[in-house]
Amino acid sequence: MIKFYDCQPAPSPRRVRIFIAEKGLLDKIEIVQVDLRGGQHFTPEFARINPHCTVPALELDDGTCISESIACCRYLEAAFPEPPLMGRNAKEAGVIAMWEHRCEWDGFIGGAEMLRNTAPGMKDRGLTGPISFEQIPALAERGRKRIAWVHDFLDKRLAESEFVGADIYSVADITALIAIDFAKRQKIAIPESHKNLQRWCDQISARPSSKV
Amino acid sequence: MIKFYDCQPAPSPRRVRIFIAEKGLLDKIEIVQVDLRGGQHFTPEFARINPHCTVPALELDDGTCISESIACCRYLEAAFPEPPLMGRNAKEAGVIAMWEHRCEWDGFIGGAEMLRNTAPGMKDRGLTGPISFEQIPALAERGRKRIAWVHDFLDKRLAESEFVGADIYSVADITALIAIDFAKRQKIAIPESHKNLQRWCDQISARPSSKV
Repeated sequence: MIKFYDCQPAPSPRRVRIFIAEKGLLDKIEIVQVDLRGGQHFTPEFARINPHCTVPALELDDGTCISESIACCRYLEAAFPEPPLMGRNAKEAGVIAMWEHRCEWDGFIGGAEMLRNTAPGMKDRGLTGPISFEQIPALAERGRKRIAWVHDFLDKRLAESEFVGADIYSVADITALIAIDFAKRQKIAIPESHKNLQRWCDQISARPSSKV
Repeated sequence: MIKFYDCQPAPSPRRVRIFIAEKGLLDKIEIVQVDLRGGQHFTPEFARINPHCTVPALELDDGTCISESIACCRYLEAAFPEPPLMGRNAKEAGVIAMWEHRCEWDGFIGGAEMLRNTAPGMKDRGLTGPISFEQIPALAERGRKRIAWVHDFLDKRLAESEFVGADIYSVADITALIAIDFAKRQKIAIPESHKNLQRWCDQISARPSSKV
């Protein structure tokens, strides 16, 4: 049985957890909680599974480890094609990947820049992984500005499209939701003027997968 | 005919240019040079094509724009499957995506952090895109440290594998090469002790696609 290394409160593994739920695989994959707060990802036991010391990660039956959120999704999409979450044809695949990457880059990373460079509990944890990186306080402000930009471009996108990536729900909606929710946890709400984004957010948040 | 918006000297569009070359598509796609130094990506004409004001970008026959390097590759892989550069089965697809993302994240982004946060010509261009971001000098040092980490993990990976992503050449090798070469341009060479990485770099650099 495939193992999914998760951490319930963290935004990054939530991307893959939602993907698993949307694929209807919650009871076909073993979910293992990793205690990030307690540093379990830095233990020799976990480093043997994923030397990059991050979650999410998948462990296949033959022991292969796949880490990085988008790579976990890519594996699952190929192994369990239905329902398609990464595009039904070449154009959709490209456009969805574009929006997914934009939401990760400015949205998710923007949120991470805010959190990791200010939280006292994240001293020397400016970036994920086994190497220590000092906090850079100026990144918190940059992260805030990136999130504002994500709010703006998503609101514009959602004026012309029901979903972020295509005319069906996709992994781009998942990464966008994670970015928006991560920002909310840091007290950055969707601006009131952004009606399209709010409409989309209400709709996506109501899906059962958003609550797993 | 598909258009590819390129900028010959820049590392990011080179990822897609190499991908196009490996697919044998150099004479089937129209390549349009965008003058980044002259600010052509910020003109209203280019913003109509890609509102995020970045290259690389593809423009399909129906006018659809696909930007973000990995999304351009994803489209091309689906539209022109041979030779496969993103995995021949689910496991390969996942493992290649993992290594590709790691090389982008710490390698390519590490290089960008160094360049964008120090070069006088990149004042207020701390990040790509239409929004101005101030330079954060501390990121240059962080970028340098990330590149050292990439050199280390790639050398280890290439001790056990001929290629970065799988036992065939893939998009993970492309992104790794771009990251290594971007670092070299900033005077960070592969450490002499990293024989596996140097062996791989010599081999990949000798491919015709690496010279386009």
